[in-house]
Amino acid sequence: MEPKEKLSIVCFSGDFDRAVAVFTLATGAAATNREVTIFFTFWGLNIIKKRPGHRWTGTGILARFFNFLMGGRNNLPLSRLNFGGISPKLMTGMMKAKNVATLDVLFEAAKELGVGFVACEMAMHILELKREDLIDEVTEVIGVSTFLDRSRDAKILFI
Amino acid sequence: MEPKEKLSIVCFSGDFDRAVAVFTLATGAAATNREVTIFFTFWGLNIIKKRPGHRWTGTGILARFFNFLMGGRNNLPLSRLNFGGISPKLMTGMMKAKNVATLDVLFEAAKELGVGFVACEMAMHILELKREDLIDEVTEVIGVSTFLDRSRDAKILFI
Amino acid sequence: MEPKEKLSIVCFSGDFDRAVAVFTLATGAAATNREVTIFFTFWGLNIIKKRPGHRWTGTGILARFFNFLMGGRNNLPLSRLNFGGISPKLMTGMMKAKNVATLDVLFEAAKELGVGFVACEMAMHILELKREDLIDEVTEVIGVSTFLDRSRDAKILFI
Repeated sequence: MEPKEKLSIVCFSGDFDRAVAVFTLATGAAATNREVTIFFTFWGLNIIKKRPGHRWTGTGILARFFNFLMGGRNNLPLSRLNFGGISPKLMTGMMKAKNVATLDVLFEAAKELGVGFVACEMAMHILELKREDLIDEVTEVIGVSTFLDRSRDAKILFI
Repeated sequence: MEPKEKLSIVCFSGDFDRAVAVFTLATGAAATNREVTIFFTFWGLNIIKKRPGHRWTGTGILARFFNFLMGGRNNLPLSRLNFGGISPKLMTGMMKAKNVATLDVLFEAAKELGVGFVACEMAMHILELKREDLIDEVTEVIGVSTFLDRSRDAKILFI
Repeated sequence: MEPKEKLSIVCFSGDFDRAVAVFTLATGAAATNREVTIFFTFWGLNIIKKRPGHRWTGTGILARFFNFLMGGRNNLPLSRLNFGGISPKLMTGMMKAKNVATLDVLFEAAKELGVGFVACEMAMHILELKREDLIDEVTEVIGVSTFLDRSRDAKILFI
């Protein structure tokens, strides 16, 4: 039996549109029998915060401030033409109208399909995020070298 | 005979500077005997719209609005220091002055060199773009899984 | 002996956060015995300018203007929530407070670890940057095709 093809995605961005790209690629790959891992780092950590809205997280004042401003999965901005956060909502409406999976649907599908969620240790340190601030599906908090070791046989995309 | 090296580019961005990067990599790779495919998705679809300016495209009001605002190949914004669209024009002037291929030249070269143009089915659905809204050189409208299948032996870049 | 794993990074972005990602990946990979090359292009060239602040570089008025506005390593903006350049400084403070390597530390570590620095010929032409405008650690100025040839056995990330 041939080994499964592997896809690793570094999810650096916390933009709504790029998050849709990450989860579309991840679910598309997993649904066709590939082993997929998403390494969430920096702005990407916002996508896997347990509390999906604007919340004060962290202990230091700056980390709390940045975490509040960045918010979570329900507040991801569009990378262009965001119009103060209206556009991601409009776009979600357009996706529903066209029977295209929304980000929430893709997110749940990724979990169902066994896509691996891992979080970047260093970025969590900087933003003072603790393991319990992230969704339960995150199986590991790892460093860059470990991620590269795991992705030895994988294609890696940086998004 | 060794099989040709392959390069697949996910062209997600519709920024002028990133489009230049996409087409520079694509033509550079194709000119040195590599097989190159560009998968245009989301903002990247603007680059391959038949009508390169701001136009009302799509049927729903929101899709029409977004398509108008995004425009096409002649309106791509610079990702930084865009200054209301002046910078891409200035930069094109700098490229000409330095005898560096402009985006239009790179775009034509990519076609000449046989770079494959494919478009993302899902993104077209969301933005209500039809096959006939895109340039004739687009050979296929495919989904993410098909793209990944085709890119099995390729390096993939997400831009 | 197995050949070393290779990682090539196209550093297109000149954003502070993406530069941190580039150098974290580069040093993490090099520290675990991988051969790493960073190909600096477009905005990424700002990171390896010899003079790290806002300076008039180039001969043409437009190139001088763009180079002044973009600045160098000390002026890289955050890709979101930049607040006029305050955020990169705040974030550097947060990194120090958390004993996480700052961009300057990562930059020096990359040099120590033998990460290869190469610069994109075409982007230098457009921005009128000369070899002597870049830091001494840049070993070569090459084109895209040469970069792809060198990266034949490497994973390539576009950041």
